[in-house]
Amino acid sequence: MVKTRVEAFSDGVFAVAITLLVLDLKVPVHGQGSVAHQLGQEWPAYAAYLVSFMVIGIIWVNHHTLMAKLARVDRSLLFLNLLLLLMVVLIPFPTSVVAQYLHHGGWDAKVSVAFYSAVMEAMSLAFAGIYLWAGSHHDLLDGSVDVTAHRSAFRQFGFGTAAYAALIALSFLSAEVALGGHFVLAVFYVFDRTSA
Amino acid sequence: MVKTRVEAFSDGVFAVAITLLVLDLKVPVHGQGSVAHQLGQEWPAYAAYLVSFMVIGIIWVNHHTLMAKLARVDRSLLFLNLLLLLMVVLIPFPTSVVAQYLHHGGWDAKVSVAFYSAVMEAMSLAFAGIYLWAGSHHDLLDGSVDVTAHRSAFRQFGFGTAAYAALIALSFLSAEVALGGHFVLAVFYVFDRTSA
Amino acid sequence: MVKTRVEAFSDGVFAVAITLLVLDLKVPVHGQGSVAHQLGQEWPAYAAYLVSFMVIGIIWVNHHTLMAKLARVDRSLLFLNLLLLLMVVLIPFPTSVVAQYLHHGGWDAKVSVAFYSAVMEAMSLAFAGIYLWAGSHHDLLDGSVDVTAHRSAFRQFGFGTAAYAALIALSFLSAEVALGGHFVLAVFYVFDRTSA
Amino acid sequence: MVKTRVEAFSDGVFAVAITLLVLDLKVPVHGQGSVAHQLGQEWPAYAAYLVSFMVIGIIWVNHHTLMAKLARVDRSLLFLNLLLLLMVVLIPFPTSVVAQYLHHGGWDAKVSVAFYSAVMEAMSLAFAGIYLWAGSHHDLLDGSVDVTAHRSAFRQFGFGTAAYAALIALSFLSAEVALGGHFVLAVFYVFDRTSA
Repeated sequence: MVKTRVEAFSDGVFAVAITLLVLDLKVPVHGQGSVAHQLGQEWPAYAAYLVSFMVIGIIWVNHHTLMAKLARVDRSLLFLNLLLLLMVVLIPFPTSVVAQYLHHGGWDAKVSVAFYSAVMEAMSLAFAGIYLWAGSHHDLLDGSVDVTAHRSAFRQFGFGTAAYAALIALSFLSAEVALGGHFVLAVFYVFDRTSA
Repeated sequence: MVKTRVEAFSDGVFAVAITLLVLDLKVPVHGQGSVAHQLGQEWPAYAAYLVSFMVIGIIWVNHHTLMAKLARVDRSLLFLNLLLLLMVVLIPFPTSVVAQYLHHGGWDAKVSVAFYSAVMEAMSLAFAGIYLWAGSHHDLLDGSVDVTAHRSAFRQFGFGTAAYAALIALSFLSAEVALGGHFVLAVFYVFDRTSA
Repeated sequence: MVKTRVEAFSDGVFAVAITLLVLDLKVPVHGQGSVAHQLGQEWPAYAAYLVSFMVIGIIWVNHHTLMAKLARVDRSLLFLNLLLLLMVVLIPFPTSVVAQYLHHGGWDAKVSVAFYSAVMEAMSLAFAGIYLWAGSHHDLLDGSVDVTAHRSAFRQFGFGTAAYAALIALSFLSAEVALGGHFVLAVFYVFDRTSA
Repeated sequence: MVKTRVEAFSDGVFAVAITLLVLDLKVPVHGQGSVAHQLGQEWPAYAAYLVSFMVIGIIWVNHHTLMAKLARVDRSLLFLNLLLLLMVVLIPFPTSVVAQYLHHGGWDAKVSVAFYSAVMEAMSLAFAGIYLWAGSHHDLLDGSVDVTAHRSAFRQFGFGTAAYAALIALSFLSAEVALGGHFVLAVFYVFDRTSA
């Protein structure tokens, strides 16, 4: 039953965080050009919205997959899960920063995407923490779970963690390319069947 | 169980998106006329709120009907569902744009309603995608579902998709008439029993 | 199962609407007096927050009581429920208007509280609609429900509907007294056991 | 069943309140220094976000623990729970005030943290009220609950209530130290196993 409420609460947080992303899309301001022009100018906000929506969606799918493997949830896992949610709830903030600064270019755009990547890295580490804790406490896992498979799936988190670290560095070379990297990484996770 | 969490997460997103619509209603500003006058002036925002509320409500009812037909959910359906939610979460944004620009009239009002219609079209296509995927993967459908009936119900989505496309075009003739068209379409769906 | 999702979706909407009320509380602005003074000045916002929170809380409790009586939910009830939620979601808006204008006094304060009362009246009517529909469709009611008791409980809705109508009129005499009336009415419902 | 909906509604409110905290983090304003500099300046907002997130997370965990002990929920408990939620929903507001005024220092910073502490005290009292009510109505408790243990756990609430009162006083000596005290108290609750 504990597990059910953890899922319900997490689902609620995921649902609110993913929906708050829409608040980053700014309604055109009267007197600053036509609506069509202003909507067109807002492509960095749309790109950031799309990438963050995909990322939160994927975390939700993976969270769901992970919870299905658990027989029960202990207090440590409860707080590791809160740590993950701390990062998930944060995502609309760096998304706003990127939406605002990507088209300014220069140093500000780079710092914005690096900040975005750093939040993703922290989120990825929190997820790995949950995975690691569950893997090293077999009493938490459902009887049907293959512990070896659980460990090999963990290698994928290592990949994600390394990829986000690389994207932090890449941000300082090109903000646009790094944001594109987040998109490619998200698409990869969508199609990657082994993590499900 | 997977299905239950997809429903819970989707319900959460629908609930938040439908509630965020209220943020489009602007509190009268002190010193710009009486409260009564300013509340009266805001009719485009009320109209947009009402139509978007009905649309999200109807999508929720239909989503609910569709999910009841499914025995299980595969990873593709999970991501098609995220695509639908991507559009549902977006709805408060074009609603804001319409609420802001409908009474300005002219080109800006037309573009606003066309943008609104385009988001509805995209949402309609995502819904059709889920429906199509479920219909062509009989193993996902519940044993009690009549596949022929499922296909004939699909024709209705074709109707919705065509109607929203027509409303995009209509927006450029008259923004008010096109928004009225969205209202009529929503009322039609409310009373249309075959889709339930 | 239908009923379960209606409850889950409604609970989600209630939860978001009640939480959005906090957005009406304005953080003191730097340079416009001390934080202590500005927080103290905000009493109309606190009063409006408290009353609206209680009202949404009570609707939720009553909704919960009503749903427990139902064996199943038909499509009409689904849409009557959406109508109720349309009004619930609206509540943060008139709450904002009251929070902003109550201390301005005069005509604007009166119109604000009258507007607030009118939304409550509409919400009350929507609730009565659901109750009436369920009462006149015995196949929707759970076998254990006493239809006579259901009808006598309905008289209470008549009372609420009349009370809110009276508060609309009272708003034009005194905004503060009318808002106090909403508070008294809410307290009455909290302690009224017959409606549970 | 009643209990299930109370949990679902409370989980929804907790989830929305915890997610709204992100709205306190302000996107850097163009033309007021580099993005990196402005993000760095925002440390009081990050600190307030972190502390409030932990506090809401802990209340959620404790709420969850308490509900697991209950066999059923009566109308009084329903409204005591609404009182707790009234305070939980409020939390993003004092968090905003602290985020805005902590770095101003002086009297305003002290009043801000004292206000924050007072809301936490009120929340703590509401929680104690629920606990007390459940403890003095044994028919509400699940058969497996040890009433003596329930009472000794109650002593912890006394501790929390006293600690928050002390933090109100401490705020007037040092705003930063008092906010640090909230952090330490939260960490203490995370690791305190007896309350689970």
